Amino acid sequence: MRIHVALTPAEAAAAPTGIVVDVIRATSTICQALDAGYERVFCSAEVEDARGLRDELDGVTLGGERLGVRIDGFDLGNSPREYLQPHSPVLSTSTTNGTRAIVTAAERCERVYVASLLNLDAVVATAASHGDDVAVFCAGVKGSPCLDDTYVAGRVAEGLGYERTDAAELSVRLVHSYPSAEVAFRQSRSGRNLINHGPELEADIPWCARVSVLDVVPRFVGMHGVAAEIRL
Amino acid sequence: MRIHVALTPAEAAAAPTGIVVDVIRATSTICQALDAGYERVFCSAEVEDARGLRDELDGVTLGGERLGVRIDGFDLGNSPREYLQPHSPVLSTSTTNGTRAIVTAAERCERVYVASLLNLDAVVATAASHGDDVAVFCAGVKGSPCLDDTYVAGRVAEGLGYERTDAAELSVRLVHSYPSAEVAFRQSRSGRNLINHGPELEADIPWCARVSVLDVVPRFVGMHGVAAEIRL
Repeated sequence: MRIHVALTPAEAAAAPTGIVVDVIRATSTICQALDAGYERVFCSAEVEDARGLRDELDGVTLGGERLGVRIDGFDLGNSPREYLQPHSPVLSTSTTNGTRAIVTAAERCERVYVASLLNLDAVVATAASHGDDVAVFCAGVKGSPCLDDTYVAGRVAEGLGYERTDAAELSVRLVHSYPSAEVAFRQSRSGRNLINHGPELEADIPWCARVSVLDVVPRFVGMHGVAAEIRL
Repeated sequence: MRIHVALTPAEAAAAPTGIVVDVIRATSTICQALDAGYERVFCSAEVEDARGLRDELDGVTLGGERLGVRIDGFDLGNSPREYLQPHSPVLSTSTTNGTRAIVTAAERCERVYVASLLNLDAVVATAASHGDDVAVFCAGVKGSPCLDDTYVAGRVAEGLGYERTDAAELSVRLVHSYPSAEVAFRQSRSGRNLINHGPELEADIPWCARVSVLDVVPRFVGMHGVAAEIRL
């Protein structure tokens, strides 16, 4: 079996099993929210589309930030630490890079899972159970590769132990260049953005750097209009 | 100043100074050919376009391979070791990934240089002389990142010493994960393809892994139809 990594959504990657990573912080938040008891999570690229789901469905919590500030009229921000208890059955989130990565993976894979470090072992075990080639889709930042997602992709590749493409080998080598996930995340552009917003958001870095503390494997179940729906 | 690396031509990268890398073997061959005395090198994505330049211009040598075999009717293959002496003033080559990277860089940069390990110090010094941000454009392989080009991008980023984007940091960390360029090149998909073709092509790997043996800085001078023209 072979493991490939797409460092940006623009790369042509395809495999029966797809794994999406946007570790700071969309996919960490999705894992945490589903573990806490939200039943359905919708990811929309645009704020207005996330908001529209509240009018359409019952019991919807809105989650999202822009530039580190909770979106006007939304209930929660993007911090996974805000999702330790469910406020309703449905969570509608706005995440640009993460949604793009999920939609790209859904177009090219038979099944798509959502990964963070929080659920690393669980998602690796589920991917391995299919006995198929795997492609990891990193959300990246504005079309460019990022250190945090590539690091997680490398952890997935190492966990699977499959034959590696060049991009998967690159990701594994990145992992070994850091003493810990937290150090990698702190150096990444997304991590530095959190640090620059102050200690409240900076606290998300060590939180998201914890490995395999959640036994959940969120999966893409289909599109709902322009929103990607994720469930356990 | 800032250094960015586009690991594939699909990534949105832009800077005043662009550097193109397709080290196994297009940009190594361009450096060697211009150092040897070819005056103009044309890079076309399609074989027919490379061939067409022979009818249009005088004194044209045709160079190119497909799947490790010299293209029918062409004078030379893709090995830089075939370009130690000029056969004519003009070289017309067919290189799919390399041409795409050059054309992408030309659309987004004020000036574009061609880099390999052979001319590493020369191209770093020239890029630094402009005092501008730099973007390295890796050709990659079929739209995916590759170890060999990313390694060279990391050497360029390290040589410049500028502030690094996430992708530039990733590239520098890849460099430090290998004991030598030759080891990195041998592990890359492009390197393994050469090895699989036998000892004659495999010999290109250590040849392209030599660092700063040529004092040339090939630059993009403009498009000639669909062909990118490179000169010193």
